[in-house]
Amino acid sequence: LKAELEKLRGLHWDGEYLHFIEQTLLPHQEKWIMTDDWQVVVDAIRRLAIRGAPAIGVAGAFAAVLAFKKNKDDLNAWNEILEKIEHARPTAVNLSWAVGKIKQSSAGQVGDNLLNTITSQAEQIAIEDEDNCLKIAENGLEVIPPGSRALTHCNAGALVSYGIGTAVGVLRQAFEKGLLKEVYACEARPLGQGARLTMWELHRLKIPCTLLCDSAAGRLMQEGKIDLVMVGADRIAMNGDTANKIGTFNLAVLANRFSIPFYVAAPITTFDLKAKSGENIPIEYRHPEEVRKYGHYKTTEGQSRVYNPAFDITPGELITGIISENNIAYPPYNFS
Amino acid sequence: LKAELEKLRGLHWDGEYLHFIEQTLLPHQEKWIMTDDWQVVVDAIRRLAIRGAPAIGVAGAFAAVLAFKKNKDDLNAWNEILEKIEHARPTAVNLSWAVGKIKQSSAGQVGDNLLNTITSQAEQIAIEDEDNCLKIAENGLEVIPPGSRALTHCNAGALVSYGIGTAVGVLRQAFEKGLLKEVYACEARPLGQGARLTMWELHRLKIPCTLLCDSAAGRLMQEGKIDLVMVGADRIAMNGDTANKIGTFNLAVLANRFSIPFYVAAPITTFDLKAKSGENIPIEYRHPEEVRKYGHYKTTEGQSRVYNPAFDITPGELITGIISENNIAYPPYNFS
Repeated sequence: LKAELEKLRGLHWDGEYLHFIEQTLLPHQEKWIMTDDWQVVVDAIRRLAIRGAPAIGVAGAFAAVLAFKKNKDDLNAWNEILEKIEHARPTAVNLSWAVGKIKQSSAGQVGDNLLNTITSQAEQIAIEDEDNCLKIAENGLEVIPPGSRALTHCNAGALVSYGIGTAVGVLRQAFEKGLLKEVYACEARPLGQGARLTMWELHRLKIPCTLLCDSAAGRLMQEGKIDLVMVGADRIAMNGDTANKIGTFNLAVLANRFSIPFYVAAPITTFDLKAKSGENIPIEYRHPEEVRKYGHYKTTEGQSRVYNPAFDITPGELITGIISENNIAYPPYNFS
Repeated sequence: LKAELEKLRGLHWDGEYLHFIEQTLLPHQEKWIMTDDWQVVVDAIRRLAIRGAPAIGVAGAFAAVLAFKKNKDDLNAWNEILEKIEHARPTAVNLSWAVGKIKQSSAGQVGDNLLNTITSQAEQIAIEDEDNCLKIAENGLEVIPPGSRALTHCNAGALVSYGIGTAVGVLRQAFEKGLLKEVYACEARPLGQGARLTMWELHRLKIPCTLLCDSAAGRLMQEGKIDLVMVGADRIAMNGDTANKIGTFNLAVLANRFSIPFYVAAPITTFDLKAKSGENIPIEYRHPEEVRKYGHYKTTEGQSRVYNPAFDITPGELITGIISENNIAYPPYNFS
């Protein structure tokens, strides 16, 4: 598993540089970028070259370390950069969680001591993420009956984490245990992370997989081809309301109609203690060009007005179970 | 309205040639094709250069006329061609309805008499379609409260008919009457008829419109931005079950969750007397390349397996009303 894991990694810290795969070019090109510049990392997060809630948390932590190296003598400047890192993207809570951890660990320290402490902290965040993914996968096995055909959305695999991923991590583990028969992957327009990234991962894992347009998910369930839905999360509120890639809510409503179990898999870092419900989760609206184009293909007229939320909120009541590294929680959710 | 109609036409019969707009190139290029070759018409239907249930009925009727001109002395050959026209696409019932009308009208006739009869019949089908669209638009006004914000899917406008279209025809009429505030158009992957065609039509009609990915429809309703959904149909069963562009069913289930009225607008030619329910409607599965690409952009790896139904079935119970040229029918549906 470890070797497989290495093959699919999207992020790697070598002690000095952060290496990341340029996800916007996948599956057509596997280009790695190596940087010691925090701005390159923040830009990669904004551009979705590094994406997925756990991964941007890890990358944000290393960006904080890289930023400190260039601003050892100016803690104010560093703190301003931390703000920028924290707000690179609004919906996933993992960024602000990671920056918070770095800040906490740095308290009262200066110079090389501080550098050593926050480097250890960032490395620990990465290692724990890898570890949490494995635990999530192990915990998730419980909900996968033998012969399951699963539907997943967007990409919640190795590329969204420092480990094997969340939703796809569970499916991968279930496949290795002989429980999972096949995976259907929704494309996830506008940016096609399902078509580009999940299919790329599943092919490399040799898990039988089929791609569909987001619009075809209802028909797929109508035809009785799906036994369960498994998705990741960008932020989970205390009542179980879950922000995840736009289209997740559609799948949850459809699954509910067909009484198909709908699971969310995510590490505890994705839970937001301050969010009582989905109403407290900020939704990111992205650039119209994402919808007006697909890659370089123009999908519509240039002046078309566009509605482009990157996430939606799935109410906790529609979620059959939330799988974390600790356990599987069932509704009614009341996290704390 | 007539002048506007002319501007937006996708089909035109000049007495000898069928002219059609090459819809696959819209909105980037407005290319008209003029043909007296039935095979060009059938190919255009298969390629979706001519598309939409009413439009392919009309085009099929003219294809039958064009085919007869080249096979006046060989009725067997002509009948074989009629079979081909009828089966150019399986889901919309309008093709077989139109070919049936041509066959009926031709009974017992030969030579130029037969040609005159079927030409008149085809022209009547076209004129009636234009007329029916206007009546549908008029009937539909009843369900559009003032200030409405409507969601539509795929394209059910002028391009799918010989007139102003079905669902978009209603919205257009409602806009002119000052009832409609704006339209949201779902993209309709894989072929983007919403992004390419509906937005193109709505811009030309100067109706305020916003494009969204199919995956964003749930969020749009979640935000309270939609007052009603209005779609077309490819085939309607006697119990109201409706085949329409893939993704329509998703919208119906979502609308139902939010108690948003969900309407279907379609001419009587779209109703299939032989289909008791949706189970009797054949669903067309199209080529994987439609999903593996968007225009010329490759969305995934070349070997990706694909699930690509072109239509889904919306159960009658989820449809608030079905608007035809005759009236508005309400559930429980029991057509005959």
